Parts: sequence; structure tokens; C-alpha cells
Amino acid sequence: MRYAVQGGKRLRGFLVLESARLHGIAPEAAVSAAASIEALHAYSLVHDDMPCMDDDDLRRGLPTVHRKWDECTAVLAGDALQTLAFELLADPALGPAAVRIELVASLAKASGAEGMVLGQALDIAAETAAVPLTLDQITHLQAGKTGALIRWSAEAGAILGQADRVPLRRYATALGLAFQIADDILDVEGDAEKAGKRLQKDAEAGKATFVSLLGLDGAKARARALVEDAEAALAPYGPEAGTLIEAARFVISRES
Amino acid sequence: MRYAVQGGKRLRGFLVLESARLHGIAPEAAVSAAASIEALHAYSLVHDDMPCMDDDDLRRGLPTVHRKWDECTAVLAGDALQTLAFELLADPALGPAAVRIELVASLAKASGAEGMVLGQALDIAAETAAVPLTLDQITHLQAGKTGALIRWSAEAGAILGQADRVPLRRYATALGLAFQIADDILDVEGDAEKAGKRLQKDAEAGKATFVSLLGLDGAKARARALVEDAEAALAPYGPEAGTLIEAARFVISRES
Repeated sequence: MRYAVQGGKRLRGFLVLESARLHGIAPEAAVSAAASIEALHAYSLVHDDMPCMDDDDLRRGLPTVHRKWDECTAVLAGDALQTLAFELLADPALGPAAVRIELVASLAKASGAEGMVLGQALDIAAETAAVPLTLDQITHLQAGKTGALIRWSAEAGAILGQADRVPLRRYATALGLAFQIADDILDVEGDAEKAGKRLQKDAEAGKATFVSLLGLDGAKARARALVEDAEAALAPYGPEAGTLIEAARFVISRES
Repeated sequence: MRYAVQGGKRLRGFLVLESARLHGIAPEAAVSAAASIEALHAYSLVHDDMPCMDDDDLRRGLPTVHRKWDECTAVLAGDALQTLAFELLADPALGPAAVRIELVASLAKASGAEGMVLGQALDIAAETAAVPLTLDQITHLQAGKTGALIRWSAEAGAILGQADRVPLRRYATALGLAFQIADDILDVEGDAEKAGKRLQKDAEAGKATFVSLLGLDGAKARARALVEDAEAALAPYGPEAGTLIEAARFVISRES
């Protein structure tokens, strides 16, 4: 479990802490929610890397859990990381019980059969589908697979602050989609060493991606437009939202 | 997910509803907690049956999830069943937010790396250990692997009723151990058709069990003594606890 949470960009945990800060919440009163989403994300990677799923040997520049140990360890470490994610949300430092149970309910919705796991299941189904997915289908798939946790992370600050979630939801919806388009671009143009994982997987598998559907230039233009939308969504917060805006710009310029 | 929660004894869900009834809680105000523990138990079976774990073809008289579909489906269905377990505990029908977050925290502790998953990991490690486990080690392993969820189920009623958990914890600790001893006896003496799963697995694998360590008669005597202790623990509840006492007797006489 410890090995699997090492490294990575910590984008989701960062979004929790930054959205909390926008609502006047100190890092100590948000860090368990940030740790929770990183544990949950790590569990999804450990299981997704397994031979029966994406069958990856490398993650964050290190051997994947089932390669370093075995599949049994990967199943159990992933399972316990998911449990840990919910346990962390019960931390009294996060505020009143009503806030914590809302974090639990919303994380469950974002990560379960209507959120992330649905996206993963659609992604696996797409691999054996007779026809490549359309742009609408890929957008739907990614809204679950990567979008749902990114949305939860950005909304967490508003939940902790018992504030309106709409601006952060709009920001995170645009950010999540831009993130996935950037991932597809990285898969084509990236450097495997910097990325810390195998690239060119989608093209090899003949899978439809934002790049195969929009072209490289079209995908880049779409990602830039989404980042502009993400920025606009944060207008109500004024200059305090500068760091989240930088994060959106980082997402489409990153190398890993 | 639906397939995996079919059938079974529903012992854990029954314990939740009965312990809730002892505290004056109506079934409607406890059923989401009962469904939660059944979803969590089902997730653990789906993953535990996988080829990299126990590699079982039959569960509750039906093909296991990875046999009926594939390993990928088993990983994802199990993952989403765990998520569903926590989502169900956020149900407002279960009472105040403080009660629900306590259910989340205690279920996470019971099922994660200090509870059920720890027991599963110790069980897998025991398969390749040079020496068979001692009675103390097996007792510790089973307190996690099967005991922790049974304890949570029985304590859930006291949590829902915001009452003292000690009598139910003592009852469930004895019940959980009796349950596992009965399982070991069933593995030796049982009928695979009635049990709905493969038997004689432990002897084939040369694993230490309560039967191999205590003998068949010794194991039966120990199970009976534990059921008596479980009954004694419920004395504070008087005749109202009759159904839970019957459940303890059922546990050591069951055929599946």
C-alpha cells in the first residue's frame, strides 16, 4: 500500500487542498480528504495495471505492484487502499459529521459503478468492440474514468466549506476533460522515461482517442479551449484562484 | 454486482437487523447497514475466488464471477461492491450523520488492512509458509479474515442505537470463531453440493486448520463452548436475544 502511493503528480490531492484554501480551510483541516483521494486513485491504478486489465509493467517510473510482488498482493493492496480512502474521510479533523458523511457519499458516487469503475468497464469493453468509439462515447467514458475523481477533488473544498459547488464543478469538468486529452496527446508525443509509463499503447491497440478523432492539432486546440473555460469558471473567486488556474495550464503542458 | 450478492446465508445482514431490533431500531432504519455488510462480504468473496487468490470455480452453488465472465469483471465488480458498501452507510435512513460516520469508520477498520484484508493476506502467506501455523496464529488470522466482519455486523445495532457495544462484541467474537471452526469441520465432513462450494481444500493444501490442530472431536467441543459463551454474553438483553442465540446454534450445525 505504501509503495503504491509513492510518486505521481498528486494532482487530485493538490486540488483538494487548493479548493479548501479558497474556502478558508487550513491544510490540516483538509489533508485527510487529500490523502483519501490519493489512496483511492492509487487503488485504481494498482488494479488497472493488473494482467487481466491493462497489463502494465511500469507505473510512476517503478515496477507495478503485481510485477514487484504478485497479483494476489495487487488485489489485496488495492482493496485495502480503497478501504483506507473511506476510513480517512471519517477523520474528525475534516469537520462536522454531516460534512464527512457527504464526502463519503460523494466519493462513493464518483468512484463506484456510476463513476470511475463504470468508465473503466466501458474502457475495457471498448477494447473488444467491433467499431471504434465515437467522440461522444469517449467523452462519456472519460467523464467516468478520469473525470469523476478530478471533479470530486475540486468540489471537496466546497463540501468542506459548506459552500456552492457549481463554480468548482464547472472548473473540474473542463479540467478533467483537458487532462484526458493531454493524456492522449502524451501517449502519441510523449517521452516514456519522463512519463514513467509505457506510451503509444492506444495506437498499438487501435483504440479511438481524442487524438485519433480530432487529429493532433484539433486535440490541442480543444484542450486549450477547455483550459480557458476552466479559468472562466473560477472568476467568482478572483485572484485567490490563481494557483488553480496555473494547475489547469500545467495539465495540458505536462510531460508525465 | 447483482449476481455476486445473490444467495448465501445472509448471516451478516441478519446480525445487523437483529442487533438493531434489540435496540428498538426498526428494519427500515437498519436495512442499508445490513445491505452494506452483504455487499462488502460479496466483494471479498469475488476477489478471494480469483485465480491469483483461492482459484475457486463455484460459490453459493453458482460459477464464480471470473468463471461466468472474466477476471477483469471480477476485479471491477468486487471493487464497485466495496464502494457500494460505503455508499449505503451514507443513507440518511440510518440516523444522524454522527452515527453514519461511525458506521463508516468502524467498517473501514474491520474490513481493511487491520481487519479482513490482513486476515486474507496472512491466509495467503500461510499457504507458502515452511511450517504450518500454530493455534494462536490461526486464531489471529481468522479474527481478521472472518471475525472482523461478523463483529461489525453484531455491533452495528449498538452503533445505530448509540448503546454499549460490549455485550454484542463479546457475543460476536465467540460467534465468529465458532463460525470458522464450523467451516473447518464442514470442509472435512460436509457435502459439497449442500455447501455450494468445493470442500476438502485445506487438507489437500496441507494447511493447518482448527480440525488439524484440535482433532475433529476437539474442534466440535471448542465450537460448542464458544456458542455457550456467545449465549452468556447476551444475558443483559434477556429473552429478546433469543433469535441471536438460535443463530449461534445454527452456525455450528449448518451444512453450507
